[in-house]
Amino acid sequence: MDPRPIGVFDSGLGGLTALRELRRLLPGEHFIYFGDTGRVPYGGKGREIIQHYARQDVAFLRSFDPKAIVIACGTVSANALAELTGDNDLPIFGVVGPAAQAAAAATRNGRVGVIATAASIRSGAYEGQIAQLAPRIKVCPQACPLFVPLVENGRFRPGDKVVELVAEEYLAPLRQAGVDTLVLGCTHYPLLRAVIAQTMGTEVTLIDTGAVCADHAVRTLSAQGLLADRAQGSCRYFVSDSTQDFARLASIFLEGDIAGEVTRVEIENY
Amino acid sequence: MDPRPIGVFDSGLGGLTALRELRRLLPGEHFIYFGDTGRVPYGGKGREIIQHYARQDVAFLRSFDPKAIVIACGTVSANALAELTGDNDLPIFGVVGPAAQAAAAATRNGRVGVIATAASIRSGAYEGQIAQLAPRIKVCPQACPLFVPLVENGRFRPGDKVVELVAEEYLAPLRQAGVDTLVLGCTHYPLLRAVIAQTMGTEVTLIDTGAVCADHAVRTLSAQGLLADRAQGSCRYFVSDSTQDFARLASIFLEGDIAGEVTRVEIENY
Repeated sequence: MDPRPIGVFDSGLGGLTALRELRRLLPGEHFIYFGDTGRVPYGGKGREIIQHYARQDVAFLRSFDPKAIVIACGTVSANALAELTGDNDLPIFGVVGPAAQAAAAATRNGRVGVIATAASIRSGAYEGQIAQLAPRIKVCPQACPLFVPLVENGRFRPGDKVVELVAEEYLAPLRQAGVDTLVLGCTHYPLLRAVIAQTMGTEVTLIDTGAVCADHAVRTLSAQGLLADRAQGSCRYFVSDSTQDFARLASIFLEGDIAGEVTRVEIENY
Repeated sequence: MDPRPIGVFDSGLGGLTALRELRRLLPGEHFIYFGDTGRVPYGGKGREIIQHYARQDVAFLRSFDPKAIVIACGTVSANALAELTGDNDLPIFGVVGPAAQAAAAATRNGRVGVIATAASIRSGAYEGQIAQLAPRIKVCPQACPLFVPLVENGRFRPGDKVVELVAEEYLAPLRQAGVDTLVLGCTHYPLLRAVIAQTMGTEVTLIDTGAVCADHAVRTLSAQGLLADRAQGSCRYFVSDSTQDFARLASIFLEGDIAGEVTRVEIENY
């Protein structure tokens, strides 16, 4: 039993998709969520600056003495997991490994698509993990640099012609490649799930990285006896830009699920 | 005569449209350009953090002892000009005033459209400036939050279906309002000039904020005797993210115009 909180972070709002799953699975835990909204997006930036920002994000979360940290961000998971794990003596969970496992287990025809930010695709992290697990699977990577700006602007619903056109452009090569499984390799993308599903067709299995990462973290913490013994947990939210904008958008994204205070952080001081 | 350099900054690449004009008008000047590529975009962020970033950008440029600073960024000009002018004892030029003057002079029917980032439109700066100059002009403001992400991803050319669809969505209300003059209130937007012109129709006058700001700065510095007496100037580029990505994209944007070294800066130390 460990009563300490679990830290969760993302470049912005996307990580809330993982947080929602974590809270559903672990209603008795305390969570600290940090969204780096003052520097979002990470996915178009260079590896070095992503690692620098991620170190600051983790340093901030560590000020709460967490028992574990969940990197609820595909871009950080793909570009900085090894560095963060090397620097810190606590369990740190990324989304790439669990998503690769889920994809390898799900595919029937051995063709898996991966959509993610430019920085994640450039890192080759998803391909590398899947190749390690199942070398015969053919991975089709596709960078989708406009998806995060669209989602952060609240544009992710079916019927939005811009979103549908962008999805058609990005996903056409994956449809042509005949993938039967598609990794949504960025925690913003589950918000586009309906648009992606209608573009890919319902027979393609979509892997929600935030959800599989949450599931993996819960199983690991449980096996290590690190969960809290508490009926009702809590969540505190921290952001590096305006707290009002975050609370408003987060409530839309999570359909009223956001509860608790939102506090502004000077992240560059960490 | 003043041999000191002129500082120019933007959140990213957009300010290069103003820099190009400055260099064309003032071939004998030395320029220092800073693009805050590690924190781009500014236009979706809150006023407080925009002011904080702008102060750091100016502090960095001041380390070169410039004789003047050009804010080649609509979002910073609209949200932080007064604060920056109050903090610093050197001429600081923003894009809003010169663009408002140019628009007021250009309109024949008294209906002016302003397109800019969400933060610029929310500030009301363009409307306020135009109302001061010519209270009878009707201003139609329109936030275009996806334009900067599109441009920063190199997508701004006619024939790009996504760009054309987004432009159609944003500009339709301005066409319906019958504006005869449109302020491109963000220095990224001149790159979209061809798409915007084809959407608005050729009879609408487009005001390039970077160019009119450059022109205004040159006239002011010249009147104050602050220009350099030198045949051949130079330009040094600084960015807060990867220098390679910047050099590659800047060369595309400015059609080979970028010349000189690009150096990485730890902007949060300023």
